[in-house]
Amino acid sequence: MDSAVLLDILGNENRRRILRLLSHKPCYVTEISEYLGVSPKAVIDHLRKLEEAGLVESRTDSQRRKYFNISRNLRLEVDVSPYEFDMKSAYPASPNLDVSTCQYLSLNVQYDSAQAGDTEAVSDVEAGEIASLAEELNCLEGLKSELSLAQRWVHGRITDVLDQLSEEVDENGQNPIRAEILATLVAGAETVREVGREIDAPEHVVEGHLTSMAERGIVEQNDGHWTLSG
Amino acid sequence: MDSAVLLDILGNENRRRILRLLSHKPCYVTEISEYLGVSPKAVIDHLRKLEEAGLVESRTDSQRRKYFNISRNLRLEVDVSPYEFDMKSAYPASPNLDVSTCQYLSLNVQYDSAQAGDTEAVSDVEAGEIASLAEELNCLEGLKSELSLAQRWVHGRITDVLDQLSEEVDENGQNPIRAEILATLVAGAETVREVGREIDAPEHVVEGHLTSMAERGIVEQNDGHWTLSG
Repeated sequence: MDSAVLLDILGNENRRRILRLLSHKPCYVTEISEYLGVSPKAVIDHLRKLEEAGLVESRTDSQRRKYFNISRNLRLEVDVSPYEFDMKSAYPASPNLDVSTCQYLSLNVQYDSAQAGDTEAVSDVEAGEIASLAEELNCLEGLKSELSLAQRWVHGRITDVLDQLSEEVDENGQNPIRAEILATLVAGAETVREVGREIDAPEHVVEGHLTSMAERGIVEQNDGHWTLSG
Repeated sequence: MDSAVLLDILGNENRRRILRLLSHKPCYVTEISEYLGVSPKAVIDHLRKLEEAGLVESRTDSQRRKYFNISRNLRLEVDVSPYEFDMKSAYPASPNLDVSTCQYLSLNVQYDSAQAGDTEAVSDVEAGEIASLAEELNCLEGLKSELSLAQRWVHGRITDVLDQLSEEVDENGQNPIRAEILATLVAGAETVREVGREIDAPEHVVEGHLTSMAERGIVEQNDGHWTLSG
């Protein structure tokens, strides 16, 4: 899903309230309208936008009443700093993803559902199942907040490094874009077009900065392919 | 910063374009107005909102022209699923944060700036410095995308576990809130008030669900403190 579309949708307080309400229970238009204190017509309009974006879907129950629920798992991340304005939205990664193959990261989420059920002194299989799911959930929630903290740490570190790079390549502090262009080259972009697309800047602007950094020996060009010098 | 305020601000295409432009370079109102094809009056209005939110600040240069730049590092995360609508915004974590103390996570970002500078066959100290910063940046960017992938994986896993919990505690599928209430108890909330605040639901609704789950032996109450049974 397009991040811009998602931000347009989430940029409305009543749509956020509808999503929060639907995350608690599926609702009819009249329920939502009463809860929000907003006319049914306005609610229908918001629901239409949420449906079009695929965030919400409707079903009809046995009494032919139409109710709405959240249809999609997704995640939006926005990073803002003097060097970047980066939006990213994505569906959940596959549960089969082998997170142990990460290069910079190891996850340590160990729980043995069967064992957890056994050790609980419960007479009821169902209660044991619930307890072990709850344990798994607790573990995942812990991991989730640690990942979030780690992301904030990385975001801060990246900005620090870009600050230092800027000091080297942007004497008057008027061109934070230069540090970002270097970051893009390091990440594998080679042509003016690739760099421009990556940082969402016009090609002639990128080219101008690359040329003036080349004059200072910071980057070099070979057949339209740019790399860091040295 | 309040996530709702941030989403209100980011829910406008022109404000997003201003932020992207300012992440490339500090700009005057007329530059922004020409770039966006929007009247200076409208630009000033957007900048005022961005300034009020603390995202943007202005300076006056030697010719007494006022230019704007992004003043803040921050990060916004939104999770949407049938069980949750969760928004979180935060400033970067302290660079001194000891990420090695995480319980579920280990990070492996090793780079030795001095060494990286030495091994490069560069005649110029400055170029060596730039290369080692670039290496560090590349490493951090790699970590950032792995963290993001891990976050998406966790988001998917949490939804799966909530699906399974729901099957146990919400026979007709009309109350996703029940799985979320259990998750909150597992995470340490004890009273109706704490649970309600955590999931942003009215206390009488939370109490109703807890009571009916207690009747089925899923949760139990002691002196106003709720826990999972078993």
